[in-house]
Amino acid sequence: MKEKKVIIINGPNLNLTGTREKSIYGAKSFENFYNEELLLFAKKNNIKLEYFQSNHEGDIIDKIHSCMGDKDYIIINPGAFTHYSYAIHDAIVASEIPTIEVHISNIYSREKWRSFSVISPATIGIISGFGLEGYKLALQFILYKYQ
Amino acid sequence: MKEKKVIIINGPNLNLTGTREKSIYGAKSFENFYNEELLLFAKKNNIKLEYFQSNHEGDIIDKIHSCMGDKDYIIINPGAFTHYSYAIHDAIVASEIPTIEVHISNIYSREKWRSFSVISPATIGIISGFGLEGYKLALQFILYKYQ
Amino acid sequence: MKEKKVIIINGPNLNLTGTREKSIYGAKSFENFYNEELLLFAKKNNIKLEYFQSNHEGDIIDKIHSCMGDKDYIIINPGAFTHYSYAIHDAIVASEIPTIEVHISNIYSREKWRSFSVISPATIGIISGFGLEGYKLALQFILYKYQ
Amino acid sequence: MKEKKVIIINGPNLNLTGTREKSIYGAKSFENFYNEELLLFAKKNNIKLEYFQSNHEGDIIDKIHSCMGDKDYIIINPGAFTHYSYAIHDAIVASEIPTIEVHISNIYSREKWRSFSVISPATIGIISGFGLEGYKLALQFILYKYQ
Amino acid sequence: MKEKKVIIINGPNLNLTGTREKSIYGAKSFENFYNEELLLFAKKNNIKLEYFQSNHEGDIIDKIHSCMGDKDYIIINPGAFTHYSYAIHDAIVASEIPTIEVHISNIYSREKWRSFSVISPATIGIISGFGLEGYKLALQFILYKYQ
Amino acid sequence: MKEKKVIIINGPNLNLTGTREKSIYGAKSFENFYNEELLLFAKKNNIKLEYFQSNHEGDIIDKIHSCMGDKDYIIINPGAFTHYSYAIHDAIVASEIPTIEVHISNIYSREKWRSFSVISPATIGIISGFGLEGYKLALQFILYKYQ
Amino acid sequence: MKEKKVIIINGPNLNLTGTREKSIYGAKSFENFYNEELLLFAKKNNIKLEYFQSNHEGDIIDKIHSCMGDKDYIIINPGAFTHYSYAIHDAIVASEIPTIEVHISNIYSREKWRSFSVISPATIGIISGFGLEGYKLALQFILYKYQ
Amino acid sequence: MKEKKVIIINGPNLNLTGTREKSIYGAKSFENFYNEELLLFAKKNNIKLEYFQSNHEGDIIDKIHSCMGDKDYIIINPGAFTHYSYAIHDAIVASEIPTIEVHISNIYSREKWRSFSVISPATIGIISGFGLEGYKLALQFILYKYQ
Amino acid sequence: MKEKKVIIINGPNLNLTGTREKSIYGAKSFENFYNEELLLFAKKNNIKLEYFQSNHEGDIIDKIHSCMGDKDYIIINPGAFTHYSYAIHDAIVASEIPTIEVHISNIYSREKWRSFSVISPATIGIISGFGLEGYKLALQFILYKYQ
Amino acid sequence: MKEKKVIIINGPNLNLTGTREKSIYGAKSFENFYNEELLLFAKKNNIKLEYFQSNHEGDIIDKIHSCMGDKDYIIINPGAFTHYSYAIHDAIVASEIPTIEVHISNIYSREKWRSFSVISPATIGIISGFGLEGYKLALQFILYKYQ
Amino acid sequence: MKEKKVIIINGPNLNLTGTREKSIYGAKSFENFYNEELLLFAKKNNIKLEYFQSNHEGDIIDKIHSCMGDKDYIIINPGAFTHYSYAIHDAIVASEIPTIEVHISNIYSREKWRSFSVISPATIGIISGFGLEGYKLALQFILYKYQ
Amino acid sequence: MKEKKVIIINGPNLNLTGTREKSIYGAKSFENFYNEELLLFAKKNNIKLEYFQSNHEGDIIDKIHSCMGDKDYIIINPGAFTHYSYAIHDAIVASEIPTIEVHISNIYSREKWRSFSVISPATIGIISGFGLEGYKLALQFILYKYQ
Repeated sequence: MKEKKVIIINGPNLNLTGTREKSIYGAKSFENFYNEELLLFAKKNNIKLEYFQSNHEGDIIDKIHSCMGDKDYIIINPGAFTHYSYAIHDAIVASEIPTIEVHISNIYSREKWRSFSVISPATIGIISGFGLEGYKLALQFILYKYQ
Repeated sequence: MKEKKVIIINGPNLNLTGTREKSIYGAKSFENFYNEELLLFAKKNNIKLEYFQSNHEGDIIDKIHSCMGDKDYIIINPGAFTHYSYAIHDAIVASEIPTIEVHISNIYSREKWRSFSVISPATIGIISGFGLEGYKLALQFILYKYQ
Repeated sequence: MKEKKVIIINGPNLNLTGTREKSIYGAKSFENFYNEELLLFAKKNNIKLEYFQSNHEGDIIDKIHSCMGDKDYIIINPGAFTHYSYAIHDAIVASEIPTIEVHISNIYSREKWRSFSVISPATIGIISGFGLEGYKLALQFILYKYQ
Repeated sequence: MKEKKVIIINGPNLNLTGTREKSIYGAKSFENFYNEELLLFAKKNNIKLEYFQSNHEGDIIDKIHSCMGDKDYIIINPGAFTHYSYAIHDAIVASEIPTIEVHISNIYSREKWRSFSVISPATIGIISGFGLEGYKLALQFILYKYQ
Repeated sequence: MKEKKVIIINGPNLNLTGTREKSIYGAKSFENFYNEELLLFAKKNNIKLEYFQSNHEGDIIDKIHSCMGDKDYIIINPGAFTHYSYAIHDAIVASEIPTIEVHISNIYSREKWRSFSVISPATIGIISGFGLEGYKLALQFILYKYQ
Repeated sequence: MKEKKVIIINGPNLNLTGTREKSIYGAKSFENFYNEELLLFAKKNNIKLEYFQSNHEGDIIDKIHSCMGDKDYIIINPGAFTHYSYAIHDAIVASEIPTIEVHISNIYSREKWRSFSVISPATIGIISGFGLEGYKLALQFILYKYQ
Repeated sequence: MKEKKVIIINGPNLNLTGTREKSIYGAKSFENFYNEELLLFAKKNNIKLEYFQSNHEGDIIDKIHSCMGDKDYIIINPGAFTHYSYAIHDAIVASEIPTIEVHISNIYSREKWRSFSVISPATIGIISGFGLEGYKLALQFILYKYQ
Repeated sequence: MKEKKVIIINGPNLNLTGTREKSIYGAKSFENFYNEELLLFAKKNNIKLEYFQSNHEGDIIDKIHSCMGDKDYIIINPGAFTHYSYAIHDAIVASEIPTIEVHISNIYSREKWRSFSVISPATIGIISGFGLEGYKLALQFILYKYQ
Repeated sequence: MKEKKVIIINGPNLNLTGTREKSIYGAKSFENFYNEELLLFAKKNNIKLEYFQSNHEGDIIDKIHSCMGDKDYIIINPGAFTHYSYAIHDAIVASEIPTIEVHISNIYSREKWRSFSVISPATIGIISGFGLEGYKLALQFILYKYQ
Repeated sequence: MKEKKVIIINGPNLNLTGTREKSIYGAKSFENFYNEELLLFAKKNNIKLEYFQSNHEGDIIDKIHSCMGDKDYIIINPGAFTHYSYAIHDAIVASEIPTIEVHISNIYSREKWRSFSVISPATIGIISGFGLEGYKLALQFILYKYQ
Repeated sequence: MKEKKVIIINGPNLNLTGTREKSIYGAKSFENFYNEELLLFAKKNNIKLEYFQSNHEGDIIDKIHSCMGDKDYIIINPGAFTHYSYAIHDAIVASEIPTIEVHISNIYSREKWRSFSVISPATIGIISGFGLEGYKLALQFILYKYQ
Repeated sequence: MKEKKVIIINGPNLNLTGTREKSIYGAKSFENFYNEELLLFAKKNNIKLEYFQSNHEGDIIDKIHSCMGDKDYIIINPGAFTHYSYAIHDAIVASEIPTIEVHISNIYSREKWRSFSVISPATIGIISGFGLEGYKLALQFILYKYQ
């Protein structure tokens, strides 16, 4: 398999993972998980992995645009933007980059408004409820495509 | 890791996968995928895998009941029961067996009624839109829990 | 015209037609009507007719599957499954067999919930409100296709 | 059977059948079908058939009124009036003439607003999705009543 | 009091009053009631009364326009147009003629769709459920204004 | 005509009519109108008229009960109870006394919640939007019944 | 079993039971049933029974408050208050007295608005549709708790 | 009283009562309760009691059909079928056997979807929230009918 | 550019523009605007312009039909028909003539029911809120297509 | 500042504050708070404070009426009447006394039905979620108006 | 005409016009169209035109603020912000600058969520479905105001 | 009382307060009010007050994050973000800083969409409709907590 370029884009408040609301999001910070597990996993499997987090909807759209012609896959956890950012939906569609939507918690068993995603129709698939391992499953899926 | 017992339960019409509506569900039959990939993957990773399919809601509930005290995980693709079988929802809750919901297609980008699952609130997580590989990702997740 | 193979599938409670609620469903049993009128009509017109009734959603799905490669048309009266069985809807779509939906009573002028069918979008047409003659009209339509 | 008097009433835009949107309504004009098939079929079966088309809701109501004491059955295809003309609904109820509703296409599998009929509660039955043959099925049903 | 010019405008199917559905609309025809009671009442009270009925929405709008500068009051029973004719609503508003809405039956205790009027917001008041006497009450109200 | 016994029941805040919100309810107090016009009108027409006002839902129900076997008609203006007091609705139905609903303003052209009455289905008719004259029209209607 | 103190609280219009609308509520008055059956049944089973009826929402709330520290159980038939009195709901919750909701008729098979109770979430259980015997079943249940 | 024949029909997952989710459904199994209490109670009161449980919608419908001409009453706890099985609703209506609906928990104070029953309109009454004693109350009611 | 044939079709009450409700629709009559500005503009730009107004839905449908094969563009202001005339919608679709929807006022900032158009899905574009100049913008757009 | 006359009106069940459901409403009784804090605060700031509580909707309306011409401000906590008493809404509007709505708990973060107030549109402002201090904030606001 | 200052503000993803989804948005980039057509058109007609694009909601609001006292008109294409940015709506209202809303495609004939604009109520008019020419029509309209 | 650290966060367009739409928001600028009143009030009461305004949703989230471990209270007026920014909701929840929501106008008596706040469930209380004084009331509340 030729090296694949993948970016993980995390939306608002996800920089706090591991610090707060541990009963929902777990006690490990995303940063640690990324450095200790995801990067190793990626390197071992010939994936060039990058990571981007922002609380700004506009920054996320800019970043998606800049991935055009550069990345093979986007793994996105849009945080609360999941529920209203049609602009991110449009950015993904316009980019034509295959995108996987990841949620740390099971968004379908929490408040009602969390179970509706305006972004899912633009993605190839959704992984929700598996904690930080959800990101690893997304990478795993990309590898399956090239076995 | 001690051997884990896992069952895959497929709901109505999933016995036809690979035969019909290939543009949505792909051209590989589940049976083949199960025998050629999932069983091998399971054996290699010390998982005892079983497979059950039925077009009968009652059979699926009976099967879930019979898993109590016997299986460590259920991987369920409820097919169209996803959208109205509160009885399967209740069976999963009653069984207290951790359950993963898998859909072959991205149910959030098709007809509107397919984007609402009455079963998700009873599961630990959802994987949707990754084709048959979705089942492998579910097994992968179980392995992560014991690494 | 080459002989056509047609199956009539009746859903839950339709085995009671002619016995109960006669003001709505009429006083003739479906069995009698089938033997005395439909079979004769079919034979005279070179149609090989079969009849199946079940109160079990799963049995109806199994039966639809078994018609694949065997029947030219399905005439289905889904009874109360009309209003929630997305699984039967999916079975019809998957079977790719042209299907006609028949209701004995005018389902649009009774309780509100009876006027919504989840199955209609999968059928080629609906005949509702003409009593048992509705089945004969369905056969009639099939004949028109080959005149 | 004594001669029966039947009128077919077609609503707005149905004068264009066979000319436009052939993928939905077919390539045969209603006029041709009426002259070449329906009239022959009616004559052979002792039905005196009449035909009326208008794009004016008021003309259709006037026509229904004029049928009182004159016609035994109305076969109506209300076109787009199906979805909002409570006035035609009331005219049918007031006329007390048994009425059959016919739609050329399967109105339940097109735009959502086409699947709601304000007129159905006033009719004895609905035939939808069988092309122009639907009109013949309606006549057929009338004959069944007198066999 | 100076002579007042008043027109009664009746909508679709109201020409049948007294002939059909007597349990709802009563057994007296509007024509008779108009000639025997309303005209006498009007003459005695210095009202110049006129009467117009049509099953055509457009005719009713034309008539309302022609009343501008000619009539002091409109008494309208819009029949089934009550529930969807925003065009008649707009015509009344544009005419700036004070208008009274009359219904023979109590529209709030019948089918649900009859209890919603798109026309009421354009009128000065509603009289519903008092049979044909409702029209007389409307005239009565006009007289009160000039006592 | 034998003397008729009629009661006017006014609901909450109607004791303030003529004092406040004059642009909506007019500048004349109900008390004055009752004494100066309604009582005279009633006496002249052989109606024994009574008047009751309360801001208490329970008092109004008690009053309706006490009218059983005593009054021939109730004229009720339920004020804001119009929109939620199913208990008054039930009291009217239980009393079996023919009841006329009156509103001073046109409730269909104000706030949306004012256009829905839970009480109308229990009444024989509604008069809305004619100011205090609406009460007189209700009495007028009772007289018509005995002409 | 120690003597239990129980109060039956009946809401608006229930004082008319047995007098009116007998096809729905039966022909026996609640007073008679209470004196002839419920009191005897209670005495025999060591229950001190009390009865209270009011058409006033406020009186019912006051009564519930006065039961605090005095009654072991409340049996309430809120009549039409069932459908909107959040105040009674709150009073029951605040009182912390176990409460049973009784309806004489089957409220789920009448008008749609009767099938929604704002009070049920505050009660331990609902008994609906068993006529006056429903009150006896409620007492029966209290006895079961102490067997 | 002549011996009465009664059947208790329990729907999906109710075979697990007493084993799981004890905080909601209690710690006693239905089987034990049935054998130790209900059967004794029935025998003592000249009721011939039978019990049937299934996780299959079709089996429950078949069973209801087989009760026609054989049972005097049905006591049904439809479990999760309560919320969508119009087919069971229709079976009860068709059977014409008086039917009592029982729920162990108070279905009106749990998840929103549990508070809506499609089956209640077909029953004579509902008992909800009294634990297993609810079944005994249902039998009690049947006895009252023959006292 | 070859001469283009364009028709302006105005719906109900638009004949009153300039006479009434000037605060909303402006003080200039459409007739004047048409003669003084639109015709000149059209002539200068090689457009053959025609104008048609009717308060009759059926006349507008007839007119659209007669434009087939004759006009290159329709500019339609459906007036209040905007909100319910599915029949005009269907006529536009059937005609296959590119159609522009114009509203004088901004229909999105008035009553709620004015912001929903059943006709827009059949048009190539909407111009709303620019007064009579909106018609000129529509013509302007047609010119752009040929520059 | 001239002395201001202010009344606090508390609705149903608020007499129980401090006694019950302490986790939501706190452990201090309103009576104590009123006597120990609010009266002192008022006296110090030249406010003449009065207090009224009732579980009767009608009493609250009567009280509001009696404040006309007597009070400068009303501070109202309508309790559960918040959610349905349009009659209190109308009383406030009619009184023309500036009114402040206070809720002890944050009504927007509890049951869904508690987040909708029919009374708010009649008030100048809402204070919700600050415990009993909310009443003090309301007084504070009145003082600001005269600084 | 005095020189007019106009700004075009484009929202998220509109920088990609001409590059992606050409079947919907056309093949010409906005940049080219702006430089080659709009600027020329503006210069010729004494309009000083400026252009701004951002994927950041906040930047767009800042820009609108900075236009106050500087621009005569805003032409805005809010992209996907159309459907949820009440903040941009408020910014336009606050700026008091007359604003024209432009959409390249007909937003009323695409996905349902695209047909609802939260911004339209703040604008003087909407132009939708005319491709890039829509911007030119907006400028055209401004010129009409000064002829 | 130990010094408390409090931040006021104002959302989009609030920098324009005092300049525009004065009938709704008043004529005083927030800046002036902050400097002349709030800062003095805070200093006098041992509160260290800070102020932050942004039209950027992301900046507000960043700011909330930066308050963690630094501020004792947040006073937020989210402007139009109130109605859709689930991301700000989540930021407040994650921060675990007690937060007070302030609105200058009464958001419940303006446009319908302004009466729904997605942020309220994350706050301890809401103050709405008191003009700029609302901010002072929020500070006042904080002081009460420490008296």
